[in-house]
Amino acid sequence: MLYSLIMAGGSGTRFWPMSRELFPKQFLAFEGSDSLLAKTIDRILPLVPEERIALVVGSTHAAETRRILQSMNAGEGRRCRLVVEPRSLNTLPAISLASLLIAREDPEAVVAVMASDHLIGPQDHFLALVQHAAGIARDEKVLVTFGIPPHRPETGFGYLELGDELPAFSTGLFTARKVARFVEKPDREKARAFLAGGRHLWNSGMFVFGVRTFFEELAQIQPEFKASLDTVNSSLGTPGERRAIDLFYRHAPSLSIDYGLMERSSRVWSLSGPIDWKDVGSWSALDDISPRDGRGNVIRGNAVVIDTENSIIQADKRVVAVLGLRDMIVVDTDDATLVCPKDRAQEVREVVSHLRERNAVEAQEHRTTHRPWGHYTILDQGPMYKLKSVLVNPGARLSLQMHLHRSEHWVVIAGTARVTLGEEEIFLHTNQSIDIPKATRHRIENPGKVPLIVIEVQNGEYLEEDDIIRFHDDYRRTEETPETFAPPAPRGEPA
Amino acid sequence: MLYSLIMAGGSGTRFWPMSRELFPKQFLAFEGSDSLLAKTIDRILPLVPEERIALVVGSTHAAETRRILQSMNAGEGRRCRLVVEPRSLNTLPAISLASLLIAREDPEAVVAVMASDHLIGPQDHFLALVQHAAGIARDEKVLVTFGIPPHRPETGFGYLELGDELPAFSTGLFTARKVARFVEKPDREKARAFLAGGRHLWNSGMFVFGVRTFFEELAQIQPEFKASLDTVNSSLGTPGERRAIDLFYRHAPSLSIDYGLMERSSRVWSLSGPIDWKDVGSWSALDDISPRDGRGNVIRGNAVVIDTENSIIQADKRVVAVLGLRDMIVVDTDDATLVCPKDRAQEVREVVSHLRERNAVEAQEHRTTHRPWGHYTILDQGPMYKLKSVLVNPGARLSLQMHLHRSEHWVVIAGTARVTLGEEEIFLHTNQSIDIPKATRHRIENPGKVPLIVIEVQNGEYLEEDDIIRFHDDYRRTEETPETFAPPAPRGEPA
Repeated sequence: MLYSLIMAGGSGTRFWPMSRELFPKQFLAFEGSDSLLAKTIDRILPLVPEERIALVVGSTHAAETRRILQSMNAGEGRRCRLVVEPRSLNTLPAISLASLLIAREDPEAVVAVMASDHLIGPQDHFLALVQHAAGIARDEKVLVTFGIPPHRPETGFGYLELGDELPAFSTGLFTARKVARFVEKPDREKARAFLAGGRHLWNSGMFVFGVRTFFEELAQIQPEFKASLDTVNSSLGTPGERRAIDLFYRHAPSLSIDYGLMERSSRVWSLSGPIDWKDVGSWSALDDISPRDGRGNVIRGNAVVIDTENSIIQADKRVVAVLGLRDMIVVDTDDATLVCPKDRAQEVREVVSHLRERNAVEAQEHRTTHRPWGHYTILDQGPMYKLKSVLVNPGARLSLQMHLHRSEHWVVIAGTARVTLGEEEIFLHTNQSIDIPKATRHRIENPGKVPLIVIEVQNGEYLEEDDIIRFHDDYRRTEETPETFAPPAPRGEPA
Repeated sequence: MLYSLIMAGGSGTRFWPMSRELFPKQFLAFEGSDSLLAKTIDRILPLVPEERIALVVGSTHAAETRRILQSMNAGEGRRCRLVVEPRSLNTLPAISLASLLIAREDPEAVVAVMASDHLIGPQDHFLALVQHAAGIARDEKVLVTFGIPPHRPETGFGYLELGDELPAFSTGLFTARKVARFVEKPDREKARAFLAGGRHLWNSGMFVFGVRTFFEELAQIQPEFKASLDTVNSSLGTPGERRAIDLFYRHAPSLSIDYGLMERSSRVWSLSGPIDWKDVGSWSALDDISPRDGRGNVIRGNAVVIDTENSIIQADKRVVAVLGLRDMIVVDTDDATLVCPKDRAQEVREVVSHLRERNAVEAQEHRTTHRPWGHYTILDQGPMYKLKSVLVNPGARLSLQMHLHRSEHWVVIAGTARVTLGEEEIFLHTNQSIDIPKATRHRIENPGKVPLIVIEVQNGEYLEEDDIIRFHDDYRRTEETPETFAPPAPRGEPA
């Protein structure tokens, strides 16, 4: 059966300040309102049912990934499966572990590996490509890569050097070839030669293979690595499973699948065709994916733009005024602003490194945090207080909880709240308020049809999110982290 | 007697977003924590007592000017006098009206006219210069201008072309000369020639004259204008005074004192000497007045600066990250961000024009508004609510007031509040709250020794500041605007 494996382990440094370590690129929407991750899932869904779609995510991103899955399908949710990595390594360990879990369910499975941060169209071509690749991978027992015919001398991608064409496996739409060699990111001159020569394709980072073929090649090329995977395999389904996976991740080498497997295998074919493929790699990529004004600017949000050319201006709520800029990037968010020339967009990760060294929260988090029940925004904070605006979706409720170090004061700004406080239940309307003393069970719920907005004033000597004792939670946050690759819950139950 | 006239009518467009129409440049602190206006007053004080210092301000800036005066002298206040202009015209009407008011008090007065947005040092040289100029103005019945020997080919200032030296009026420190001609802002080539030739000085915009001489020259050069001033003069002290001033301002020509009087008068001398004079004219002026790092950057606040040269980076609270910038200005405030090259700093006023066209509040006001009792910041707002953080200084209290369209809810975050609500008086401590219904008299007071911080949640269909009925106010805001050039209140009473 065909599975899809979506790599969603990105670290969110190159799209700072819009991305953060806890809110990386795949969670962002660049076109419309859906995140790149949701778009990736929706794209493959006509071919692969949701329960055979697996997402590889880091442990710090698991909760947000679940929230996005939950919000898909018009709120019905998508029952995709999560492979939560204990730490972020590289693509080979991630794909290997996920393939192991898939092989246990179906030893003949074919897996289509996708990145979670690409924009691809048109969808029918893409699906035909995956389907064709899956047939080849199954029947010919090869590793199929997707190559993209280059249309500019791009130095930011790896390339595939093509070998013989395989006319028997080409169609009117797609061309199959052997891959002679994987080429690392070239310099400008080489990239020009590749573009002119016509024997190189961009390496899209998407692959299709049968799990059996994959492990055969792995055993030959990386025997030691394969042996440690076998240890994990024998633990699957036993109480020692989590420990075995942790141990594997502690010792596994940080290898990419390209370098660790593909470029040393003689069983790699490439398939290419009329696919519009965009790697949303850094801020400068917005030039490709966003509409531009008459002077080549990409402008989003509340901006005043005077005599400015070929620049990317992204404002959030606040006014951003630019004057006399050329080829610049200006990105403004609630708590941070970035200004740099377009050709330095790759170096934005250095900003994040600097912030991390300072232990600055702006490297990690946004002011607004999404939760399964809605979201909250930190509006202000001082030595003994924190001020939040909390939005609860209609029909949703927070967990029944208690804090040891803070009291809270809630004022309803919009909607109606049902508040549980100790043994009492109270309805609060606009402009009504309630005090929540320390060490008292409480819960807030939106029983209505419109969003409930509450201003929360916290007071106390310790105001971090981890001062919380949860007694009951609709979103199962009172339980241990769900099992890796757990079978999806039946629809209708909270995921 | 010697008077000083401080021109504080600036419009605050070139230092946007740090300045706003309601909070122009003279209210900003560029060195240390004192505003340019306070520094200007402190600079002249050893020579001119406070009650002989008059400030010319626009009507929209009168309240903030009073607040700054009140906060000076370690909170004791400065009893300077205000000339409130009904509308902003130009320097000749402003100086003429103020001189009229001064002449009524002392027909032999000598007036030293200063800008409110210059940085000048050392103070002892400056005071000696003013004193020497005052003597010459009184004895020789001339208009004395202060010229600054140029040290760069500046194209942003006007120049004085010098005539004969006046050795009898020069001292070891200062050189007196006749002024041959006033020269408008030159082009680069001319400015270079002026610098090389040694016969030109920068026109500092500071003047010293006897009011009698001033009006004699005015009668000769601008007889019509002088006649309309005489009408104002005959109304002073009568009930028709305010009306006469308004009428004068409605019809007065928008003339600068340079163009309207000085450059047509043959009685203009210049005095120059070892004065360090800085016109804080636009963002690029920060290069002159602020310390720079090893790469020529002026960096203020919470910034991450990577591979950046000769740039001005001003962060407020939020993180500003810049990477790979050359000769740029990045200014970030609570609600607005500006990015432009240094050599376009003069055009920042265009940004303000654009915002004004959109009726954007960011042209006019900051999120934080200062009041005589403390300040407030708008933290968030929506269709039916507004959220403010309010700080009340120790010992201060807001007016006894009432709102017709909103209810308020207060939560104390720090300090202790004494709240008057209807006939009741209630003390509130940290994390206690109170509801203030519509149409109910209320007042909040800080009886304590530390700042009182209150979060105010407003609810209602109309949430503007003008929904306020004041019953009693320590700061006389319940009364009509105080009379122009009113004699200062005795110290100790609220100004």
